[in-house]
Amino acid sequence: MIAILSGGVGAARFALGMRQIIDPTEISIISNVGDDEVLHGLHISPDIDTVTYTLGNAINPDTGWGLKNETWHAMDALTDYGGITWFRLGDRDLATHLFRTQLLSEGKTLTQVTDRIRKRWKVQPRILPVTDDELRTVLYSVIDGRAQQLTFQEYFVRYAHKPAVSRVIYEHSAEARMTPSVIQALENAEAIVIAPSNPILSIGPILAVPGVSEILSRRRERVVAISPIVAGQAVKGPAAKLMAELGLRQSAYGVAEYYKDIISAIVIDDTDAGLADQIRLLGIKTFPTNTLMTSPETSKNLASAALSMISGEPV
Amino acid sequence: MIAILSGGVGAARFALGMRQIIDPTEISIISNVGDDEVLHGLHISPDIDTVTYTLGNAINPDTGWGLKNETWHAMDALTDYGGITWFRLGDRDLATHLFRTQLLSEGKTLTQVTDRIRKRWKVQPRILPVTDDELRTVLYSVIDGRAQQLTFQEYFVRYAHKPAVSRVIYEHSAEARMTPSVIQALENAEAIVIAPSNPILSIGPILAVPGVSEILSRRRERVVAISPIVAGQAVKGPAAKLMAELGLRQSAYGVAEYYKDIISAIVIDDTDAGLADQIRLLGIKTFPTNTLMTSPETSKNLASAALSMISGEPV
Repeated sequence: MIAILSGGVGAARFALGMRQIIDPTEISIISNVGDDEVLHGLHISPDIDTVTYTLGNAINPDTGWGLKNETWHAMDALTDYGGITWFRLGDRDLATHLFRTQLLSEGKTLTQVTDRIRKRWKVQPRILPVTDDELRTVLYSVIDGRAQQLTFQEYFVRYAHKPAVSRVIYEHSAEARMTPSVIQALENAEAIVIAPSNPILSIGPILAVPGVSEILSRRRERVVAISPIVAGQAVKGPAAKLMAELGLRQSAYGVAEYYKDIISAIVIDDTDAGLADQIRLLGIKTFPTNTLMTSPETSKNLASAALSMISGEPV
Repeated sequence: MIAILSGGVGAARFALGMRQIIDPTEISIISNVGDDEVLHGLHISPDIDTVTYTLGNAINPDTGWGLKNETWHAMDALTDYGGITWFRLGDRDLATHLFRTQLLSEGKTLTQVTDRIRKRWKVQPRILPVTDDELRTVLYSVIDGRAQQLTFQEYFVRYAHKPAVSRVIYEHSAEARMTPSVIQALENAEAIVIAPSNPILSIGPILAVPGVSEILSRRRERVVAISPIVAGQAVKGPAAKLMAELGLRQSAYGVAEYYKDIISAIVIDDTDAGLADQIRLLGIKTFPTNTLMTSPETSKNLASAALSMISGEPV
């Protein structure tokens, strides 16, 4: 059993690699929900959907989110109303949110709903929201001279992750509970891989759920991260910029330092091989390799590299 | 100022006639909300939407509900999930519900939201939900041997108004309040027309809101109904069958009797002219004419007939 801590696009691509080398039914993807949003009354889980659609071979390859062969009639009509359209919901994608919201309103948990959606897309790895409780990533910023608190999607999509961020909190995280499935996955995994997702915005909310960091610390020898930062830049998105804004080092070293209590190894890009000695001083092994997932083959190699860092007997 | 008490399709067609003979900005359509439904987390107001789309020249003429030139990608995708699809929501129509639900969640009233939607469709008559409070038509029936309480849409759409109904209640009506706009429209109208809608399911919920019947009783000389029952049958829908099931007479006379305390006149179909004397004994004037609205011209004539029954000085 392998557990992957997951954000959106980067984690989804990494999971595509992992399922080439591990029995897919032996993979549990523990997903961030801090970027979930309620819009138009609909419960939207962008990270979960990106992983589901990607593994379901239904993702729009051009955007990395949403469904391929999508139409936008509802959004166009909502534009005519002057409605909220900065978060684009395709017509077929809308069905996912309608379905999720209906089941949640009937008392199903997000875990149960996510599993129903996963099965419709014939995705074999389990996709597990880290918690069924509320958890919201909130970013403090200043926009047009006014202090603002932004949800993740407001920051990421509406403002295209341009605003400088002074602080990030994970609202309600103190009361959020790991689900039983998550506890089981984390406790039983032979390897726990932190996907190359944004440490603060994608993995941070997962780590903020009480108990997660404790299990990872205790099982640190089984935990390996992939750096999403290559040569000081994020492969995609605002990770590097955000790390700098929050006083972290904008490098693979900064990633290793952020995770230092919970990982024993990190896969870094070849271009960052020079950081290996410094990272080793944190008590963390390094594996420099090509971390750019530009093909199924490179995703697979990256998954292999990660697992090769975790030695020892099967659990 | 003319006020129309309104259900869905029949009332919408009647309003098309009325706006040919009255300045459209002088028409207030007071709409039933007892058939509103929350599905997939979305607040759906079918009667309001049918009136809005019809007056906005956007209604699907084949069905009498929904938008013309509609696509169904979201519903098709929801079918793949095994979701709730008996209530068909077209992709463009969905935008109406997304927009409504978002504004309601921001604290806007249904009256305010309805007005925003009306303006987008360039509809000139005002469309006023009878109340901004919760109000639900509930039908008691027996389905597959089991006693059931159905919402209007479950009865009407899901079960195609086939089940026999033993009782109808208007849930929460005792606490529902007329809106200020509705009070003003009812108090100031020179004529109040009860559209040819289902008396029990479309008009009944409006009359159940405290204060509505009182105003209509007091202004009875200004109130005229159009019978939706022709030759003992409903022009459309289950009105006649339902009236019989609930012990009312299945005829234009039964309609007159149902409204007897609040109307002074009723327009009945030519084919029901023989009921005129009997209806007159209820203290209600009759005007037999062609009540089948098969064209803009017949809708217009019907509106003229209704207004001709209300004599007296302008208010």
